[in-house]
Amino acid sequence: MLDDAFFDYLRGIDCSDVEVYSIPEGSVVFPKVPLMRVEGPVAVVQLLETPFVNLINYASLVTTNAARHRHVAGKSKVLMEFGLRRAQGPDGAISASKYCFMGGFDATSNVLAGHLFGIPLRGTHSHAYVSSYMSLDEIPDRTLRNKDGSKICKDFVSLVKEWLCKIQAADSLRNVFGDTNQSELAAFASYALAFPSSFLALVDTYDVMRSGIPNFCAVALALHDLGYKASGIRLDSGDLAYLSIETRKVFHAIEKEFNIPGFGKMVITASNDLNEETIDALNKQGHEVDAFGIGTYLVTCYSQAALGCVFKLVEINSRPRIKLSEDVAKVSIPCKKRCFRLYGKEGYPLVDIMIRESEPSPKAGERILCRHPFLESKRAYVVPQHVEELLHCYWPGSSDKPRAELPPLLKIRSRCMQQLEKLRPDHIRRLNPTPYKVSVSAKLYEFIHYLWLNEAPVGELQ
Amino acid sequence: MLDDAFFDYLRGIDCSDVEVYSIPEGSVVFPKVPLMRVEGPVAVVQLLETPFVNLINYASLVTTNAARHRHVAGKSKVLMEFGLRRAQGPDGAISASKYCFMGGFDATSNVLAGHLFGIPLRGTHSHAYVSSYMSLDEIPDRTLRNKDGSKICKDFVSLVKEWLCKIQAADSLRNVFGDTNQSELAAFASYALAFPSSFLALVDTYDVMRSGIPNFCAVALALHDLGYKASGIRLDSGDLAYLSIETRKVFHAIEKEFNIPGFGKMVITASNDLNEETIDALNKQGHEVDAFGIGTYLVTCYSQAALGCVFKLVEINSRPRIKLSEDVAKVSIPCKKRCFRLYGKEGYPLVDIMIRESEPSPKAGERILCRHPFLESKRAYVVPQHVEELLHCYWPGSSDKPRAELPPLLKIRSRCMQQLEKLRPDHIRRLNPTPYKVSVSAKLYEFIHYLWLNEAPVGELQ
Repeated sequence: MLDDAFFDYLRGIDCSDVEVYSIPEGSVVFPKVPLMRVEGPVAVVQLLETPFVNLINYASLVTTNAARHRHVAGKSKVLMEFGLRRAQGPDGAISASKYCFMGGFDATSNVLAGHLFGIPLRGTHSHAYVSSYMSLDEIPDRTLRNKDGSKICKDFVSLVKEWLCKIQAADSLRNVFGDTNQSELAAFASYALAFPSSFLALVDTYDVMRSGIPNFCAVALALHDLGYKASGIRLDSGDLAYLSIETRKVFHAIEKEFNIPGFGKMVITASNDLNEETIDALNKQGHEVDAFGIGTYLVTCYSQAALGCVFKLVEINSRPRIKLSEDVAKVSIPCKKRCFRLYGKEGYPLVDIMIRESEPSPKAGERILCRHPFLESKRAYVVPQHVEELLHCYWPGSSDKPRAELPPLLKIRSRCMQQLEKLRPDHIRRLNPTPYKVSVSAKLYEFIHYLWLNEAPVGELQ
Repeated sequence: MLDDAFFDYLRGIDCSDVEVYSIPEGSVVFPKVPLMRVEGPVAVVQLLETPFVNLINYASLVTTNAARHRHVAGKSKVLMEFGLRRAQGPDGAISASKYCFMGGFDATSNVLAGHLFGIPLRGTHSHAYVSSYMSLDEIPDRTLRNKDGSKICKDFVSLVKEWLCKIQAADSLRNVFGDTNQSELAAFASYALAFPSSFLALVDTYDVMRSGIPNFCAVALALHDLGYKASGIRLDSGDLAYLSIETRKVFHAIEKEFNIPGFGKMVITASNDLNEETIDALNKQGHEVDAFGIGTYLVTCYSQAALGCVFKLVEINSRPRIKLSEDVAKVSIPCKKRCFRLYGKEGYPLVDIMIRESEPSPKAGERILCRHPFLESKRAYVVPQHVEELLHCYWPGSSDKPRAELPPLLKIRSRCMQQLEKLRPDHIRRLNPTPYKVSVSAKLYEFIHYLWLNEAPVGELQ
């Protein structure tokens, strides 16, 4: 157990002697290049290790995961984050919503995240809402005013029932439909009466093709009579490829049968344990889904559950430090460094390079040797067309420079999208992507290996 | 975007008409048996769905994961939760610490969780702490008072150096050690000067066997001269089985060489991406680890990243409701229910049973038919020795009954341990465990299937 005085000490910590440099949020980053450089008194900076690593790891991981989902779904699909109930508590879910939006999602079902960050909200009613109804008799107020306000339909429910009969009688649909579930029909009609301009129905409470779809269509057609356009349906179980294709056929048949232009294009949303792989499989099979609601696999980051960012001491009192390890991937790159991204003629980033702070910056049009940090033979001269410095000062401590303003979430999201578009496609293809190269300057290379040799204990060859 | 008025409505929601029944926290539970029963006005109860599911899913999952780690590690090992830096933000980490403790962990490295819940705190210094030192010259104050206060050692650092020479000269150790890293030695000596009664060293910053271990032993032996007992070491990389065994040999050799009783039993802590499988593999190889620090795989729940608890409407206005699905596992069990655990003669739980609220409770010594909820042929008579009702009222709404006090965390943790010990071992063995049976009464069985038949749309056989 700790002394209360320790918590008082923590409360009183002063970060005005700390300087923080960071790559702008929403940037594409690569392993080995530091995301942040933190300078200051060693005790304070060591206390920052855990909060910084905690705040960066999951945020970066879930943003990346969202971007991967966007990549496989394609630009034209609507992606909705539905992860609240599977995240690590309320705040884990808030982080998930924020960073999924940053990574390219369009909306969240997390109302608080929408409120806090202005993320568009999307969702549907629940299965419980559907099963809370028993029959159409439970709808007391059945009046609905036309969208243009011109007249009032006194019995919307009867209009829905008429449409259901017409659908069931239609030659082009006769083979599809029998009796539908009446409690589901009551739930849909009631929902449409409350939200006639945003009627989106969850159609799998009882049976998608034999109940959910005809019930939805009857309500959507009744709304259409009054000038409203229904939003669409959501599938939450079963074979999503098959059900979406069958549903689309029904929508097209209704468009044709009743001459309702645009009914065939009604939005089909799919959910139910979706992830990169299942979306990829749906794409290969063919499907008619317009929008995906993704939860569990998105917020728990199924393809990689944790990101391993670490915080390493690289220099103290102007003396560079190295952390060795039997695992080369865990050897830290010493020294206070500056980091640059070098771009080629086609506008793509070619390579990132880390240099010692005392070295001159790389310049556009000038040849520079880029070396692999650990492998002697991996090196190449590069003449960049354009050079971008990666680390910017966001917290200059007590100096005269102002602390940086952070851009709004939407701007960070745009940066993220643009950065991904700027990458050479082979770096981000799903199968066997070309690794992006991260290098060090010749001077830094020599210094790393000088330090490595001198810090390792004397002994046999490693 | 939502209207601000909606948030005002949410803020004003009154739960005094809601009653909440729950299985006590820290109980072992099985699929299909409701963890909670929530009664009240439908709108309010539907709004409780997402927060309840969010708060229960991850908490239950990570507690279960912790209990699985305890099961594979065995009772004698110390288990420490080190997950803060890989959890879903600060609050995801707080949940992880709390529920890992509940599931059988001994301590956490999350200082705030220790402060909030009284969980014992354990951890070591960082690699950065070690590499922040350059040499022994950096230690200004080298005095250390004997543990019993009897005298003061004026130069603890020289004492450490003497011990390092003795270790290096000792015949029984000569083959092991060469020169050690001096910055590491400085870091250890400095740490011991500040915390002589709790010296625990992270020994893999440079090289475990050639630097970390001899440096640790020199400091531990110097502390021993002054009456202090070092706590031990932590291995955070490399082959943990091999390194722990080699380290133990050195500790035993030192005990013998310098006649220091107990030195051989020095605590060896291991960390570095541990999980159930790696601990199981270590057990099979043989190792000398006394304590495990587990982070990433624990808090991200590697073996199953999410728990799929759902919230289903089972009755409205005294009318039972069912949610159907093409996936039988997703069909909900209708009706307001009471749930019981039936125990056999040996004291083990035999089966859980759900009954309709109107049915009489099962009684000890009386025969009762337990039926699989969906499969006609799976049924058996059971005569329980003891019957436990599972759901208890914690929030009786506005009734005269008092709201239940929640037990302290330590008591919940004890309940969890005891419940696991009460289970028949074949239900919790790692390979092919016998599934524990969950049943319904004959009346509830008939009712489920009556409702299923009548709610499903008329059509072909399913």
